[in-house]
Amino acid sequence: MNQLNETHDIALTSWVESANSDNTDFPIQNLPFASFKTSGTEQAYRGGVAIGDQIVDLAALAELGIFSGLAQQALVAAAKPQLNQFMAMGKAAWSALRLALSKALRSGVSEQSQVEACLVAQQEAEYQLPCHIHDYTDFYSSIHHATAVGSLFRPDNPLLPNYKWVPIGYHGRASSIDVSGQTFPRPCGQTKAPDATEPSFGPCKRLDYEVEMGIFIGQGNQLGERISIDNAEDHVFGLCLFNDWSARDIQAWEYQPLGPFLAKSFASTISPWIVTTEALAPFREAFTRNEADPQPMAYLTSAQNSAAGQFNVTLDCLLKTSGSAEENHVSTSNFKHSYWTVAQMVAHHSVNGCNLQAGDLLGTGTQSGPEKAEAGSLLELTHGGKQAITLANGETRTFLEDGDTVIMRGYCEKTGAKRIGFGEVSSTILPAKAPAKR
Amino acid sequence: MNQLNETHDIALTSWVESANSDNTDFPIQNLPFASFKTSGTEQAYRGGVAIGDQIVDLAALAELGIFSGLAQQALVAAAKPQLNQFMAMGKAAWSALRLALSKALRSGVSEQSQVEACLVAQQEAEYQLPCHIHDYTDFYSSIHHATAVGSLFRPDNPLLPNYKWVPIGYHGRASSIDVSGQTFPRPCGQTKAPDATEPSFGPCKRLDYEVEMGIFIGQGNQLGERISIDNAEDHVFGLCLFNDWSARDIQAWEYQPLGPFLAKSFASTISPWIVTTEALAPFREAFTRNEADPQPMAYLTSAQNSAAGQFNVTLDCLLKTSGSAEENHVSTSNFKHSYWTVAQMVAHHSVNGCNLQAGDLLGTGTQSGPEKAEAGSLLELTHGGKQAITLANGETRTFLEDGDTVIMRGYCEKTGAKRIGFGEVSSTILPAKAPAKR
Repeated sequence: MNQLNETHDIALTSWVESANSDNTDFPIQNLPFASFKTSGTEQAYRGGVAIGDQIVDLAALAELGIFSGLAQQALVAAAKPQLNQFMAMGKAAWSALRLALSKALRSGVSEQSQVEACLVAQQEAEYQLPCHIHDYTDFYSSIHHATAVGSLFRPDNPLLPNYKWVPIGYHGRASSIDVSGQTFPRPCGQTKAPDATEPSFGPCKRLDYEVEMGIFIGQGNQLGERISIDNAEDHVFGLCLFNDWSARDIQAWEYQPLGPFLAKSFASTISPWIVTTEALAPFREAFTRNEADPQPMAYLTSAQNSAAGQFNVTLDCLLKTSGSAEENHVSTSNFKHSYWTVAQMVAHHSVNGCNLQAGDLLGTGTQSGPEKAEAGSLLELTHGGKQAITLANGETRTFLEDGDTVIMRGYCEKTGAKRIGFGEVSSTILPAKAPAKR
Repeated sequence: MNQLNETHDIALTSWVESANSDNTDFPIQNLPFASFKTSGTEQAYRGGVAIGDQIVDLAALAELGIFSGLAQQALVAAAKPQLNQFMAMGKAAWSALRLALSKALRSGVSEQSQVEACLVAQQEAEYQLPCHIHDYTDFYSSIHHATAVGSLFRPDNPLLPNYKWVPIGYHGRASSIDVSGQTFPRPCGQTKAPDATEPSFGPCKRLDYEVEMGIFIGQGNQLGERISIDNAEDHVFGLCLFNDWSARDIQAWEYQPLGPFLAKSFASTISPWIVTTEALAPFREAFTRNEADPQPMAYLTSAQNSAAGQFNVTLDCLLKTSGSAEENHVSTSNFKHSYWTVAQMVAHHSVNGCNLQAGDLLGTGTQSGPEKAEAGSLLELTHGGKQAITLANGETRTFLEDGDTVIMRGYCEKTGAKRIGFGEVSSTILPAKAPAKR
């Protein structure tokens, strides 16, 4: 894993002209997967791969029969409405299909006219979740986020003693996860003001986003078997952008002793495109732990994990208010600051014998960087709502307002490698609903 | 809801003789659902209904075509390998099928010989999960359990201020839930002894069960819509027995601040039979809250909920050790002691707009009664492992040992009503596995 091959060559270009732009998220070196159909039609959803501003319709491509062997078998699986079966096929199948797609999309190939007939413009597409997400787990992997949030919820005890030993995670709600474009009403619930003697009920007053990445499991493990840190990433299909909407006032009142529940389960939004770990291979960074910090336990340690642990993904967060069309930059962070690696999260998750399944989603937790301006939530940027931030359009925010659209974008850049991106995840808050009739 | 009708008549008898015994869990007044096949065969799983010591094969019954209208439509859905589609049809369909089955199984009916050909002996059957469990949530509804456990984890602060206001719950792991008969290796993980400066890794030393009930959602709700307390139980298909295995030492070290994770996700076991809320109607008890306690908020309050809130289900827990075939009684409790009702759990779960889906499982949390001997976990019965209990066979336990089989049984009894039962949930702990090869 983490090996570069011909699909990463910076010199590769595609006969899809838009894929050769300097700024595209989807050059021929990326080739991420989604489930899509032509917008407004009754078409069945099917798998697609992004190239420039186009999508390769994998169902149409599979019918051409121009691939063979494992690549064709993988293509048939990836063409289905949900990617789970393809994800479960494992690394060899993912690589075979990636290589075949890379070859078919390169400038000057003889298949161009056949494959060209399989393209659908991204601006004509709509997306659904790329796979059935059976179980969703959220980690808490940014020590900067954990420390900042901990200092708000527990001023005397911001970073708990287990943080530097345990990749802290918790189970989340899968049913309310949807793809970019999701809208949802502001959640209602119980909250308790610090000076109140009793809680009250009503719309959330401290609605927030969380800038996360999503990790999609490819091949899973049997109940009772654990996934070793050495091959943990072989079980990871790819990454996406993830907005873990959070109701901070509901969370503060409900979360003890069993963790967040209704504060998170009203909606969570992912980007449509899954960027494969193979596409991300050029953008790895060695994982180094401060000498003052405890070294990870043996089941979380391997030479491979240390050598190529982190993914360098820049994460931008933008806010569009109902008052103007402008996108206001809010923060920029990077997944490379994570205290735990993807491999460590996977190894930890299964060390007790818990079975992971193809299509399971692991959230990384909010990715805040070491600087305050790199915080991945308003809770942190506004010091718990005490210091409003001013947007480029002049509006101010402590927490989110109805009509606000939160947009996250992610990309990888490095000298000697072709820039690749994740597209975006965007979703909008609707006003709270009146209670159901009694 | 909670209305008695002819299917509850204590005088009803069945032409299946074993269903007329005083002690059967499955008289004609019960009619619970499962997914089964004949043991050791390659048959497809299909829906079944228990009657005495037999199972009505719903796929075979559907082919007879002796039901009509909604009952036949419901039967066709219930005959499938998983009950989700039937569960999603709602109360009218569940009732129609129950009434048709009740009539077809009564003594003296003309359909006897046809239906008799659809029977499979329970001792020849094996079961799978009755439905696809998309999301699993665990509540914490016994105040006796919450107080006892809280005093062990937080001696100064056993019952947190939110407990009497919020039906506390958290998301659980769905993939590791299996049906009675499940075996699993003792989980490994990080633990930290109170006097240690660093955590260590190894097999769990404080492995425990939790006596719970499982609540299956029938019809769900759309994201953004909430389910009113008034009709919350219309969304509940039925109840089962549930053993929420728990690794107490892993839990103590990992659970702050985001709740239990690996301490619970290694295995959870349910009974194969779902007893419908309609079958449980004779066994309801008014829900009364101490005047000293806060009254539930408006979204958790309705006249119906107060009048017929709780289910009176006796819950027995037994332990069979590897040393002898004897079942040793450990404790008896009752679901009626729950601080929150099923309707309150459902209304709370969706009040933020979270979408529930047909087949979702809600655990009730450990059902401990007011007396210490009624505790639903070893953690409570042994005072956190400090006072071993002695079993009838002379062995002692603080926590569970390899080879131990935990069995839970549940039943409802009341003057004027036919006793009904839940069958059992039984599962066995295997030794911890050696780590995967490095």
